[in-house]
Order: sequence, then C-alpha cells, then structure tokens
Amino acid sequence: MDASTQTSSSAPIPAQTLERYAELIVGLGANVQPGQVVSLRTELGKEELTRAVVASAYRRGAKFVDVEYFDPYVRRARILHGSDEAIDFYPSWHRDRVLQLGEQRCARIGLSGVGARGVFDDLDPERLARDRFPFIPEYMQVINDGTTNWTGAGCPTTDWATLVHPDLEPEEALARLWEQVLHICRVDEDDPVAAWHVRLDALKEARSRLNERRFDALHFEGPGTDLTLGLLPTSTWDSGIAQTVDGIAHLPNIPTEETFTAPDPSRADGVVTATKPLQLGGGMVASGLRIRFEGGRAVEIDAETGAEAVRARCARDEGASRLGEVALVDREGRVGALDTVFYTTLFDENAASHLAFGSAYVDTVGEEDRGRVNESSIHMDFMIGGDDVDVTGITHAGERVPVLRRGTWQI
Amino acid sequence: MDASTQTSSSAPIPAQTLERYAELIVGLGANVQPGQVVSLRTELGKEELTRAVVASAYRRGAKFVDVEYFDPYVRRARILHGSDEAIDFYPSWHRDRVLQLGEQRCARIGLSGVGARGVFDDLDPERLARDRFPFIPEYMQVINDGTTNWTGAGCPTTDWATLVHPDLEPEEALARLWEQVLHICRVDEDDPVAAWHVRLDALKEARSRLNERRFDALHFEGPGTDLTLGLLPTSTWDSGIAQTVDGIAHLPNIPTEETFTAPDPSRADGVVTATKPLQLGGGMVASGLRIRFEGGRAVEIDAETGAEAVRARCARDEGASRLGEVALVDREGRVGALDTVFYTTLFDENAASHLAFGSAYVDTVGEEDRGRVNESSIHMDFMIGGDDVDVTGITHAGERVPVLRRGTWQI
Repeated sequence: MDASTQTSSSAPIPAQTLERYAELIVGLGANVQPGQVVSLRTELGKEELTRAVVASAYRRGAKFVDVEYFDPYVRRARILHGSDEAIDFYPSWHRDRVLQLGEQRCARIGLSGVGARGVFDDLDPERLARDRFPFIPEYMQVINDGTTNWTGAGCPTTDWATLVHPDLEPEEALARLWEQVLHICRVDEDDPVAAWHVRLDALKEARSRLNERRFDALHFEGPGTDLTLGLLPTSTWDSGIAQTVDGIAHLPNIPTEETFTAPDPSRADGVVTATKPLQLGGGMVASGLRIRFEGGRAVEIDAETGAEAVRARCARDEGASRLGEVALVDREGRVGALDTVFYTTLFDENAASHLAFGSAYVDTVGEEDRGRVNESSIHMDFMIGGDDVDVTGITHAGERVPVLRRGTWQI
Repeated sequence: MDASTQTSSSAPIPAQTLERYAELIVGLGANVQPGQVVSLRTELGKEELTRAVVASAYRRGAKFVDVEYFDPYVRRARILHGSDEAIDFYPSWHRDRVLQLGEQRCARIGLSGVGARGVFDDLDPERLARDRFPFIPEYMQVINDGTTNWTGAGCPTTDWATLVHPDLEPEEALARLWEQVLHICRVDEDDPVAAWHVRLDALKEARSRLNERRFDALHFEGPGTDLTLGLLPTSTWDSGIAQTVDGIAHLPNIPTEETFTAPDPSRADGVVTATKPLQLGGGMVASGLRIRFEGGRAVEIDAETGAEAVRARCARDEGASRLGEVALVDREGRVGALDTVFYTTLFDENAASHLAFGSAYVDTVGEEDRGRVNESSIHMDFMIGGDDVDVTGITHAGERVPVLRRGTWQI
C-alpha cells in the first residue's frame, strides 16, 4: 500500500493478519460466491480493512464490490443545518439500490464499530433520533426476504479504542482493541473457520434444547430487572448461521454467540435494567437505561444519559416501543470473558442476553404467527443479561424451568 | 470540527476561507435551489471541503446532500484482483441513480484534483483504461439533457500539491496549491461572484464574435502542430455559463476560461502535439502526446509516457478516437498567467486551447446537426494551445482569418 494515501493507518497489525481477518469476513461471514456483486458499507477511518475486504472479495470471484463510505460529519451537517424535511428524507435511489441488492441476489458486508467520537454530542437529540440514514427500512425487508448473504463485522479505529480503553494511550488502546477483536473472532486460532464451527455447533445444541421446551414465556430476574416476556406459539430459537433462499449459508454477525427468537409483542410486563450502555450510533450512548413495560409496550424509559434519544427512537412508529427480539447468551463465548464494554452492539450483544425494540426476524416464527410479530422501521438491541440475571422459562402449564443461572445453561 | 476525526487535515487555510470557497461552489457554481437534492462526488482526502460544501448546501435549503467518497485503492483492488467481467461492469443501481438525478431535477457537485498519487502506476494499462467507474456514460446523458444544475471544482490535497510543486516540502506545496486555486477561483477577491461575472461577460463577448464569423474550419499551427479541424454548419460557440431546461443558471466548471463548441467528427486532418501533460485519472499522466488525425480519426497516438493508456481509452468505442469538443482559451484568464502545470483537466484546460476525444455537448450545435456530432462513452480533454500556437479561422469561401495570436484574440 502506498504510504502517500492521506488516511492515517487504522490497523497496527501485520498485513497478513488483516488479510486473514478479511478472508474470514468475506468467506465464513458473507460467503461471497463467484460472480456475485458485493455491497460493502464502511466508514471513514476504516480504509485499510475496507480495502483488504475488497481485495478478498475480488479474489473469490466477486463481479463487483460496491463500497459506500459513511462520513459522520456529513450527517452532523445535515442535523445542524438541514431543513426539517431533510431529517426524515433519503433519495429514492437508495431504496432502489437496497431492493436491487435482494432482487439480484447480492452479497452484503458491513464494517461496524465506532468511527468518530463526539460528532453528535451537542446536537438536538430529537433530530438525531429521527435521522437514521444510511440505515433505511428496506434493509429489514431484504434481510427478512433472505435474498442476500450478508455479514457485519467490527473494524477497530482509534476513536473506538480510546472509548473502550480510556486509560490507555491511543496507540496502545488501538492495538489492544485489535487484539481483542481478532481474539473474539477466532482469527488468533490456527484455523479460525474450524474454531467457529465448534462454537456454532454448540449454539445449535442450545437452540435445539430451547425449541424442544416450547416455553410460553421467559422471566428475567436480577438487580433492577423483573420482566416477564411472552413468546408466540411458534417462536423458534435460531442461532448465528443463516441461509439465503438459495441455500447460501452465511453468518449475519461475526462474532455471534447468541440464540434468539421473536417474542409476542403484546406480552412484556415489568421492569428491565440494561446491563451495558446502549450505543445509539455515531458515538451517542445511553447509560443506566431502565424501562417499564405494560402489555408489551415500553411505557416508561429512563436513563442516566441518552433517555431522550431512546424515547425519540421508540416513538418513531407504532412498533418502535415494542419488542422484536429476545436473545440468550451464555458465558462460554469470547466476548463475555473479556469483561470489556465495547459500546457497540455487535460485540456487547454477544456478551449478554438482550432484547430489541422494533422489527422482528420473521423467520424465527412459523407461517401462522408471521402476522403477529412486531413490525417497525427500527431495530435497537439493548443488553439485559449478566451473571446475576436469572432466566427462567415458563411452560404453558405454568411450570417454572431454570434456563440460565450465572450465565450457564440449565437445560 | 472535532480534532478526533481520523482523516488528516487537507485544508491549511482558515475555516472562513474554506467556507467562502464552499459557498462559491454551491452558489455561483451549482446554484443549489431550496428543496433540491444534491449529489456530491468526492474522494478520500477531501473531507474538509466536502463537509464545508455539504453544510453550505444545507444552509441554502437543500433537501438532502448525497455524498459519495471515491477510494482509489478500491479501484486498484478491482483492477488487480477482479475478474475480466469486473472491469467493465457496474451495478444497475448506479445507472438508475444517475438517471433519477436528472428526472428529479437534482443538483450535482464534483470535487476534482489528484487524490492519491502512484496508486495505479504498476497496473495493466489496458485494464486501467477500460475501467472508468465511477464515471458512467449516463452522466453524459444527464448533462446533455440539461436536467441538473451542476459544477465541478478543485480540492487541493497533499498528493496533488507535491505533483504540481515537486520542489516544495509537502506542507508548503499544499499551502501554495490552495493559494493558487483560491486565486484562480477569485475567492481572494472582495466579491468573488462579482469578479466572476466580469470574466464571464468577457467570455460571452468572445463567443459572440466567433459565432458571427461561422467559420467552416479552424487551423492550429505551432511546434509539432499543424491540424485543420472542420466545424459543423451549426457549430455554436458556448462559454462557461449553462442553463438547465428549467432555467437554472450554473457554472459546470469553476474555474472556466474557455469558449467551446462541437466540431465535425469526420474532419480533422494533420498532426497535433499536446502542450500540457494529459491527466488520465488517479495520478496517471500521458506526457509528450502526439496524435495524427485522418478524416477525423486519430490514426497514430504516440507519447513519451502513457501512450498505451491513451490508445486503450481511444479504442473503447467508435467515437472514442474522434473529437467531440474544441475549446479556445485566451491568455487573460488566471490559470495561464500562473504558468503552472496542474495535472488536472479542470485547471489545465483553462490555461490553453484544447480538444476532447469522445462525446460532444449536443447543445453546441443546432437541431439539424445533432445527429452529426460525435458520440462516445468517453470524454477526454487534451491541451494543444499556447502562446506559440496560432489559431486561424477558415471561412466557407476559403478565406483565412487570424483568431488567436500569442494567446490574444484577433477578432
């Protein structure tokens, strides 16, 4: 790579390691097929991994890799200076593009992780919460259609690293975060793909045992948490391997340590306290989040910081204040063991059991319940699990069955 | 702006000056209207001016500013690792996007100037010449339809600055290039817009005098140049102010010092020697270019460097080896006076008279000749003028009329 490129190095790791990580993302993650068009969503500050992913995809025979760099300062300018209509608006070709990604059976890769800190801190939280671009609702349609093989993976940046490791110097923090991300993603194993298959098999076993039980509801109990969450008759637990309608296996998230399903959006009652800060995009964080549910709906949202932004997000549409996902995470994964808050959902949700406001993955219920799962233009995960949060299954007969105790499966 | 953004500063000028330049680009240049969607094509390394332009467009009432960052290393990966079909291919949504820009009467802004040097130097010139993305032919259609108000302006980068000023240290070179660009663009005037209107009026006068003459052909004579170029019966000289079909005035280029028309693509005979290096995109340069034309077609292309890339570009389609534009530039403009080679068409073409291979601007001929102008998927300008290149008009009666002598209008 030419030293004269004007973007600072974001990867203090050997080029070969970067390439191994890119290969894992493109191969096991998105499982890019020869002749496929690949959409790659990335961000300024992630240039080196972006380029390694592009090269890897072309080496696997991609027909074209279409790269979109997000610039948080462009979003900042829209929120600061844009008219009211500029906040909700996005041009028609973005919708067409996402729908064509599905129609044309493309692969999709996203590089997440905090790109730049502090860019949105001083902005109007209501405008900030309304502005979701470049996330647009058509992505949920394409995901639910199962027409694209896709993955999201993390790309360390200095800003992200100093958020996660505030006590380290920026360079050390970045090196430490890279080390953690590569460890979590099993890139430090001789054969990362084989290591992942061992873990993915264990997750499949957990979901099978949950599916055998067919609980009517789950009960979460812990400090500040006493929530009963109903499941649908056909709610089916899934784990990190997905298949497209054409049978292409892919990992929507790297890492993935969760097993998840769609709950009944009309049955959530009680109080839940988030066990990790909630990353709201672009470095905005809600901490100390506490939510009270009645009849499935969030009726009170409080937090130490970011409460207004969460409330605004949950007010976007009818389904935004109801739950679309419940996920259970044991303590065997590599994220939880690091005892690190990553301030990014992709990592934190794999450290702890969690819920998500907004849209459900319809594939996790049977045909007869597809009209009952939650619908929304948002999907916002927040962590509620931990070693001191017990998860108990409630059968249709009312029997209580321990599911997770101190992060360990009981079934 | 937050100091923590991971892109290095590209603008060693006061924020207020950057904003003045952005206002000129958005205002006099693209003339963005309230409620318009703006497409902004930019490149990594141009973040600061990009963000200033976005803010300016929103302040003028833009409905949305859609920013596309080009990464030359992504293109490099495609040319290095992509299959043969990856080179010519671009996804359908890019075509749809450009056509919708026209249908929806959007504004378009492009920031040019060398982004990163040396990225393509070691690549196969034939593959490099075939790969034009993100330039796609639909842009020429939208330009010729006159449905978008648009402008292209320059954004200095360190790589560009050290190419133009190899004897200066990078920081000095960048400061010098910014100073030159701001001077050329009249941003150093108290009222840049008023200064531009004075120059634009002078260009209008020159084009009126050329149009009164209705020459049948032009003769270029100078060192290594003896070329006779036919004009069409309705070839009409135009200059830098354009109007959309809805009457929105805009400057397609800032700076603009030229008056131009579409020649007869079947009548170019003789030899022409380029008087400036030809920038082929991404830092690739053809120098010492010498071309022999017969019956309008380039039949011999030689150069000290880059000949193969120019030949490959001219072999793309039937019209790629014929001429679509002839432009005359006097020595009164600010580019020529600096006696600097900018290695970028936007600036160099305004220092000297030039020709362009490929597509014509159909608006510069009457209805009856629109079927006769050159058509191609390329448009590649190359400079042929200078103080020692005489331009002579040839009337239909065969009379020879001096047009430019030592860069000064004779008519």
